[in-house]
Amino acid sequence: MIKAIDRRTLLTLSSLLATGTAFSAAADDKPASDQRRAMMEIPPDAPKVAMLIHPKMVAIDLIGPMSVFNIMRFNVQLVWKDKTSVTTELGIPIQATQTFEECPRDLDVLFVPGGLMGTIDCMSDPEVLAFLADRGARAKWVTSVCTGGLLIGAAGLLKGYDATANWTVTDLLPLLGARHVDKRVVRDRNRMTGAGATAGLDFALALSGEMRGEEAARRVQLILEYAPEPPFSNGTPKEAGPERVAEMRKRRAGMDRQARAAAQAAGKRLGI
Amino acid sequence: MIKAIDRRTLLTLSSLLATGTAFSAAADDKPASDQRRAMMEIPPDAPKVAMLIHPKMVAIDLIGPMSVFNIMRFNVQLVWKDKTSVTTELGIPIQATQTFEECPRDLDVLFVPGGLMGTIDCMSDPEVLAFLADRGARAKWVTSVCTGGLLIGAAGLLKGYDATANWTVTDLLPLLGARHVDKRVVRDRNRMTGAGATAGLDFALALSGEMRGEEAARRVQLILEYAPEPPFSNGTPKEAGPERVAEMRKRRAGMDRQARAAAQAAGKRLGI
Repeated sequence: MIKAIDRRTLLTLSSLLATGTAFSAAADDKPASDQRRAMMEIPPDAPKVAMLIHPKMVAIDLIGPMSVFNIMRFNVQLVWKDKTSVTTELGIPIQATQTFEECPRDLDVLFVPGGLMGTIDCMSDPEVLAFLADRGARAKWVTSVCTGGLLIGAAGLLKGYDATANWTVTDLLPLLGARHVDKRVVRDRNRMTGAGATAGLDFALALSGEMRGEEAARRVQLILEYAPEPPFSNGTPKEAGPERVAEMRKRRAGMDRQARAAAQAAGKRLGI
Repeated sequence: MIKAIDRRTLLTLSSLLATGTAFSAAADDKPASDQRRAMMEIPPDAPKVAMLIHPKMVAIDLIGPMSVFNIMRFNVQLVWKDKTSVTTELGIPIQATQTFEECPRDLDVLFVPGGLMGTIDCMSDPEVLAFLADRGARAKWVTSVCTGGLLIGAAGLLKGYDATANWTVTDLLPLLGARHVDKRVVRDRNRMTGAGATAGLDFALALSGEMRGEEAARRVQLILEYAPEPPFSNGTPKEAGPERVAEMRKRRAGMDRQARAAAQAAGKRLGI
């Protein structure tokens, strides 16, 4: 359950979307985004949220915040170059509801998820960087979780800002002109960045609170029953301790080297 | 980033799945499940995990635990009656990788997500109930999160067990022969049930720890950077307080009535 939604609406939604029709129809002009808004009963004046999707993204980076924004009845659109599906690390394909071209020029929220190998590809993709730089220049909020912080950084959107990202790549933020602050969610003016993967829930509740007040965000928290109780204390390098961190660093050495190279190249382009 | 996975594998995965090819190919015989296992580099002896998907399910109920099981390299399959997409509350369609028929008879884990309106439909669907009762009778672990607890209960799998579910429906568990225990994750013998939506992460880490040892589960926790810091304390009825709970109960009265009727009917069929 997510919210009190009447049976007729659910049936409409179900029949329209059950076979993916609405999302397939997205290939024509721009019906999918409008259909989504109508079906989700999103008010016409709802905040415009553009969530980037990209190949090799990590599903929960998107689904966590999207679950929150959906209950907030924000007008959430998934944006990418085109409407071919991108594949998450789970093998579940996700399709954009708007192309970069269709995405409104003035957004309330620009959001970028993570997934390091996909992040790295995007960090040297002129089309992605140009889109983020353009919308980010005017968006009311510029946001990310996980390695998405590197990507908005590569688009020049974190120059002179405090920020965070997935713990494995926070040391690269200064290469992009940002100052790393070791917090779960970091806000600096209109930038809000979250730590790795699961930080997306904390980020989205914090942002919803900023945008629509604490009471509205609390309501979402109760609906999602978000009173986490991790069975172990191992969610940060500090909690995990040096041995476990060293072991993980070893496994990911190749990927980390590629991330550093991508951040250095982006930093050079940005003149940092 | 999710795990150290070499570039070649990612490219293969990406090219095969980028356009949803593997999942579309699922319509033929049963290649999708095997393809998924191969692409994700799942060991052939990995635990067999069948995750039910159904129309109107809540995406994060599935994606939370699936993110954990995926990093554990469990052999995760999404199961449903057929391979038409089912639509989550987010409007994102998800396709099964195995039909009920294709799903192995002997599972390590049977898992059921929530999404109350979908749960209610499934609670009176003989095909879904027969599948769950059959696989649940032999599965090493029978599990659920959120309102999924009602569904495994309706399939007769919680008779005489301690269990939990989404806070809005825990009062219905006794109608299905279960005893509600007010905890985030409840284990009773080989049943493990989680509270609402976001409890899926806590549940999946706890189950992974039981199956493969605490150290393996801790590693996943660090990769997902799961050190939650909700910005408010409002994730349970107790935290939210009676006024906010009453307001929410009022909004959902119709849905709650339908859930109670479905649980009463299921309880009667089960002779409770």
